[in-house]
Amino acid sequence: MNLDKYQISNRFQQLQEKICQQLEMADGGGRFVEDLWERPEGGGGRTRVIEGRVIEKGGVNFSAVHGSMPDALAKNMNLPAGTDFFATGVSIVLHPHSPMAPIIHMNVRYFEAGNGRWWFGGGIDLTPHYVVPDDARFFHQQLKNTCDAFHPEFYEQFKNQADDYFFIKHRKETRGIGGIFYDYLDDDCGLPLQTLFEFSVAVGETFAPTYIYLLQRAKDRTWGEREQKWQLLRRGRYVEFNLVWDRGTKFGLETNGRTESILMSLPPVANWAYNYAPEPGSPEAETQTWLVKGTNWVAHGNGLMNDVT
Amino acid sequence: MNLDKYQISNRFQQLQEKICQQLEMADGGGRFVEDLWERPEGGGGRTRVIEGRVIEKGGVNFSAVHGSMPDALAKNMNLPAGTDFFATGVSIVLHPHSPMAPIIHMNVRYFEAGNGRWWFGGGIDLTPHYVVPDDARFFHQQLKNTCDAFHPEFYEQFKNQADDYFFIKHRKETRGIGGIFYDYLDDDCGLPLQTLFEFSVAVGETFAPTYIYLLQRAKDRTWGEREQKWQLLRRGRYVEFNLVWDRGTKFGLETNGRTESILMSLPPVANWAYNYAPEPGSPEAETQTWLVKGTNWVAHGNGLMNDVT
Repeated sequence: MNLDKYQISNRFQQLQEKICQQLEMADGGGRFVEDLWERPEGGGGRTRVIEGRVIEKGGVNFSAVHGSMPDALAKNMNLPAGTDFFATGVSIVLHPHSPMAPIIHMNVRYFEAGNGRWWFGGGIDLTPHYVVPDDARFFHQQLKNTCDAFHPEFYEQFKNQADDYFFIKHRKETRGIGGIFYDYLDDDCGLPLQTLFEFSVAVGETFAPTYIYLLQRAKDRTWGEREQKWQLLRRGRYVEFNLVWDRGTKFGLETNGRTESILMSLPPVANWAYNYAPEPGSPEAETQTWLVKGTNWVAHGNGLMNDVT
Repeated sequence: MNLDKYQISNRFQQLQEKICQQLEMADGGGRFVEDLWERPEGGGGRTRVIEGRVIEKGGVNFSAVHGSMPDALAKNMNLPAGTDFFATGVSIVLHPHSPMAPIIHMNVRYFEAGNGRWWFGGGIDLTPHYVVPDDARFFHQQLKNTCDAFHPEFYEQFKNQADDYFFIKHRKETRGIGGIFYDYLDDDCGLPLQTLFEFSVAVGETFAPTYIYLLQRAKDRTWGEREQKWQLLRRGRYVEFNLVWDRGTKFGLETNGRTESILMSLPPVANWAYNYAPEPGSPEAETQTWLVKGTNWVAHGNGLMNDVT
């Protein structure tokens, strides 16, 4: 029997449920608050937000929407306006209190067009306020392990796509240390729907334990005003990426999506300073040197990327 | 003798000079810091920023750039890629410390395409954190006076264009109480280049005394934590408008403009809260009721707009 779209959206909803439980446990204080919402044109979602002890502001959103494609979407996909579609996914952004812990983003999604086309998209990427190479290696190794269990080329391919996607063009810097990003993933890759579904679920399942471990590692790192100032400026860059370049955000805002669920990704506070540059040789300047594409964070990577030694 | 583009850009640069002096006097503490910059492809600018006693963060930018049109610009204008262009203007955004004083934006610009086309654009719009109807009436009356001296229809037309332009579509609210906005203004309106230039200079000259008077009026209004919290949320909306919808910002960032001069418009600090709604009946809720198009702030307006009584 074939997997159907309802099974996929149900599984995604369970994923949201489990991740929220894991994050509440790890936070040790905050509880998710839930909003159920309906999309007038069909479907709806379950938005959950947390203001916790460790997580300053976070959102874990599930949605399953359907109907006839908005014009902009149909045009984007070279399909006739009004084509039926179904889309479901889980989307997460977490902003920790501590500047020594990273911001994280995860998304898995499934899309079906009325003409029989379907695909998965998703990814996880990490935005440390201060890049800690050991953390970055651990993070990328987890993603690689998950990818390798499904396809020998997924990690390298999706890692490169994350470098390209999470790039703040007007700053000529990456948003953070990347991760994996994939889109329009269908059986052209040699794997059937069922396996690609399992892959997306596996990406989703990789998220919480990986991030929780990174929070653990950051727990005893002390910080003060200086680090907080830097954090707020880095959050400003996060806002710039999301509002200027992120395709999902732009698309959602331009097509009358649920604004509060889309902009859940924004930090609680962000700063901008004119022409700010960290002092040469400082930890902040060091972090900036890592905000480039093509760093190979895992052992035995291919030689085309800069090996981190 | 005909007015030429160098005379226009010189006059705009003088305008920047004078406005900076007026604002320093009014601020009574802050001094503008200047950056001269060059555009690799031709021309450059003079960016001035202030962190003052009354103005928390402000920028007054002058630029005069030329060269062959970037592809995106040429396409936008239905001109062949590589067409020569010249563009000069002054652009200002000021964020005051006090939540009881408004954010203001002013821009005047002149554009010339190699094919002989030319036009002016510009405007002034006001974004009060708390809408004070008397202030709004004063502000709009000043703009109307300036417009009326040049053309009987300018105010109404440009006021409506400001309502449409400074609209945060994904919030279904205006950025503030509007003002005037015009673009592609050329001799089709019945006025020659020389007069339209004088109009743009007059708009520029209207800016400082009008804003300084509004700062004076706000000076004795007290505020505390509550007002500051609201201010930071309203600044978040300002960021959303500028990064998601403002054509100039989007165009600049997508065509490799000088990022720091473009994003000078962003506030020093902004906040986001999930699904925030002010208490019914509060001054914050009252302000939200003013964030709509079509309010007629000046006496004897045309009956199509809602008269403010």
